[in-house]
Amino acid sequence: MNNLRGKTLRATGFHAPVCGEIDHFDDSLIRIGADGMIEAVLRSGDDAYEETLRSARQSESLVDLPDDAILLPGFVDLHIHAPQYPQLGNALDVPLEVWLQTYTFPLEARYADLAFARRSYTVLVDDLLASGTTTAVYFGTIHDDANRLLADLCIEKGQRAFVGRVAMDNPEECPDFYRDAGVAEALTGTAGLIEHIRSHPDNKDERVRPIVTPRFIPSCTDELLGELGALAAAHDCTTQTHCSESDWQHGYVLERHGMTDTESLDRFGLLRSGTVLAHGNFISESDMEKIKVRQSAIAHCALSNIYFSDAVFPLKSALQKGLRVGLGTDISGGPSASMFDSVRSTVSSARLLERGTDPALSREERSRRGDVRIDFREAFHLATAGGGHAVGLPVGSFEVGQQFDAILVDPDAPRGTIRLWPDLYEGDQILQTILFNASRANIASVWVGGERRSGHDL
Amino acid sequence: MNNLRGKTLRATGFHAPVCGEIDHFDDSLIRIGADGMIEAVLRSGDDAYEETLRSARQSESLVDLPDDAILLPGFVDLHIHAPQYPQLGNALDVPLEVWLQTYTFPLEARYADLAFARRSYTVLVDDLLASGTTTAVYFGTIHDDANRLLADLCIEKGQRAFVGRVAMDNPEECPDFYRDAGVAEALTGTAGLIEHIRSHPDNKDERVRPIVTPRFIPSCTDELLGELGALAAAHDCTTQTHCSESDWQHGYVLERHGMTDTESLDRFGLLRSGTVLAHGNFISESDMEKIKVRQSAIAHCALSNIYFSDAVFPLKSALQKGLRVGLGTDISGGPSASMFDSVRSTVSSARLLERGTDPALSREERSRRGDVRIDFREAFHLATAGGGHAVGLPVGSFEVGQQFDAILVDPDAPRGTIRLWPDLYEGDQILQTILFNASRANIASVWVGGERRSGHDL
Ligand SMILES: [Zn+2]
Ligand SMILES: [Zn+2]
Repeated sequence: MNNLRGKTLRATGFHAPVCGEIDHFDDSLIRIGADGMIEAVLRSGDDAYEETLRSARQSESLVDLPDDAILLPGFVDLHIHAPQYPQLGNALDVPLEVWLQTYTFPLEARYADLAFARRSYTVLVDDLLASGTTTAVYFGTIHDDANRLLADLCIEKGQRAFVGRVAMDNPEECPDFYRDAGVAEALTGTAGLIEHIRSHPDNKDERVRPIVTPRFIPSCTDELLGELGALAAAHDCTTQTHCSESDWQHGYVLERHGMTDTESLDRFGLLRSGTVLAHGNFISESDMEKIKVRQSAIAHCALSNIYFSDAVFPLKSALQKGLRVGLGTDISGGPSASMFDSVRSTVSSARLLERGTDPALSREERSRRGDVRIDFREAFHLATAGGGHAVGLPVGSFEVGQQFDAILVDPDAPRGTIRLWPDLYEGDQILQTILFNASRANIASVWVGGERRSGHDL
Repeated sequence: MNNLRGKTLRATGFHAPVCGEIDHFDDSLIRIGADGMIEAVLRSGDDAYEETLRSARQSESLVDLPDDAILLPGFVDLHIHAPQYPQLGNALDVPLEVWLQTYTFPLEARYADLAFARRSYTVLVDDLLASGTTTAVYFGTIHDDANRLLADLCIEKGQRAFVGRVAMDNPEECPDFYRDAGVAEALTGTAGLIEHIRSHPDNKDERVRPIVTPRFIPSCTDELLGELGALAAAHDCTTQTHCSESDWQHGYVLERHGMTDTESLDRFGLLRSGTVLAHGNFISESDMEKIKVRQSAIAHCALSNIYFSDAVFPLKSALQKGLRVGLGTDISGGPSASMFDSVRSTVSSARLLERGTDPALSREERSRRGDVRIDFREAFHLATAGGGHAVGLPVGSFEVGQQFDAILVDPDAPRGTIRLWPDLYEGDQILQTILFNASRANIASVWVGGERRSGHDL
């Protein structure tokens, strides 16, 4: 079934509207409106269930999902460097400086070539949809044509997305071959992309949105940072950047601005509601307070942090403080495009933070962090509803008023990697098995706003 | 091509006969004998290349692998609990004690039911072959019928394997419902499995071998440990067990025997050439010496160590000391059946050991371990040739005298997860991309001893 708008779905699956709690539904009815919004959710046993089922049957709008298929909310990937997709899984064996100067900047610079951009971005958006990422928050490049193309492709292919023009004008930290010529160029490009996306004739439902995107403080001059903050306010546009990702970045901002990354971004007006701060590994308690007050969010990139941050983000503290948090693949700092891998590495990294790593230390010395564990229930929430909440979109769970962004998992897919044993394990356990074992071949269908955007017909 | 015996293959791919060094071959000729052994390997440019190519063409024994397909050695998985496959990816959110008593022991106890064993073991061996595991080192259960069945299935399906009957007779550590009645029962069962495997009419090439398998010291009485050591010597059979996996196990053996796990296993005659010691996270320098002298090996189970060991195995030290090491999935302590995940987690865990995890510590306090980094080159070697060397089998690389155990990676597989950009990246980089991104759908064919055992026809 390509289009579920106006249909009533009978489905079995899981979602996690509340962090840490899994809601398992069985043969529930989900009525989807003409605009892709969920209008009603009924469980067998609910008063109106039988009546709704009957009327859906009568109007021939009932869609029964295949037996054994499991419905999950689509994933919200809060941090993706779109131009870096060609080097996914590559160059993890080199230091950050080599990674940036030898691999990443030259690769990003190639997007001046629109044909190359088309080839790369087409594959990226297709692959992310096929991987179940229904909402993507993208860093683009400094190239206006390529950024517009990325937005156009998201609109055409129906992926919910934020697309940002990367701004980077600091000659001391950016290479000559890949840098904004000046503040004016970065501002014009950013404003142009906002205008392009907002006035796009096929984007009336704002499925794709612009996002103001200073790369990070080190790559921007103070003037540019201030102007971008003002631009975001003037256009009522959200923002994204990197924040306290590494010791180096954290120390750099302290030295240059005499305050933390978070504090400095805030004074430039770059902490807004829905702002996505990637990583945040070294933010302080008071940084967390500031981020919370601003209704900004952290994109936790567990896999990438292993390779480029040298620390695990204190996720549990952030959640306990009530911060908005979602997950990010950080393509290509993280070597996987799959949010299943983000879920897995969020769980495993928290465990390593809790228990430590070095067998030469005593158990007490090793595991000094106390209660920092994150289990699959929390990670699954963050990858779905948490991410939606972070960017202020009604996505990530199957509740009335949410958009129907969903993936259908086929545990029995021929080349898939899930084995369920329903006579042995049930409920949450099924979800845990899926989260730890699913691969792309198990994703049978992907819908955004009720429209099928990847996979095969039901 | 189902059977490559007697054929000459023209192939492009990678192998790593030496730890840390990747050998990339391009249109190389690999001549495979009637017994599955590699008889010749010729690179374009070698003296005999053209002549060999011509003669293979003339005798119609040339097999050209598909363009763009990449040949890799099959994986050697040194540590698999065969009966635990149904709980793969499950129960990672509970403490070890609950994991064992509530999940693992009851599940293993079910293999008294041969129908259940057949259902589970059939899926396991099929899935592991499809995942590229050409050599598997299995723990079975205490059930003689189920163990024989597992060996029979490996023989039937053509997987190279070691199959062990788990021995566990200590009433203080094993539950009543899943424990050997006594030493005699464990010995008879172990000897019976050795006899069954060695006399199996379809196993004349010893593709499947027995392995003496005390679960670990805590679950065995001293009498049983001594008798199993004697049995291994009498039958000239290799052994496997867990060694210093966790603080608990390490401390338990120190307390019960007044010496380390390694020392104690050695005095019972359980450290033999080809012995596989799972985990070894807490082994000392002198333990390493002992293991090296005995030509025993460590099965490094990086993914499982995150959940159940609370420490990262000091792999680099072990390699620098010249220990034999391979990788293990530790199904189901590790939540993945794929050796690609073992490679990835070996790299990422070493990075976390090197750089630390806790952002509240200074960079210096966090990263106190110095040179412990493992890159994909080393991890790939360990997953293939290293594993073969560990158990003393001629597998894991494409060299004369090795068995042709191989997997063919199709980077363009429709539901796969690899994107190669040959105009941007080449050589080692292609391998790195494959190792970090491949999923089961990318494994097109799997051969053991030159015979295709999974995947589709070429
Ligand atoms: Zn980033
Ligand atoms: Zn084990």
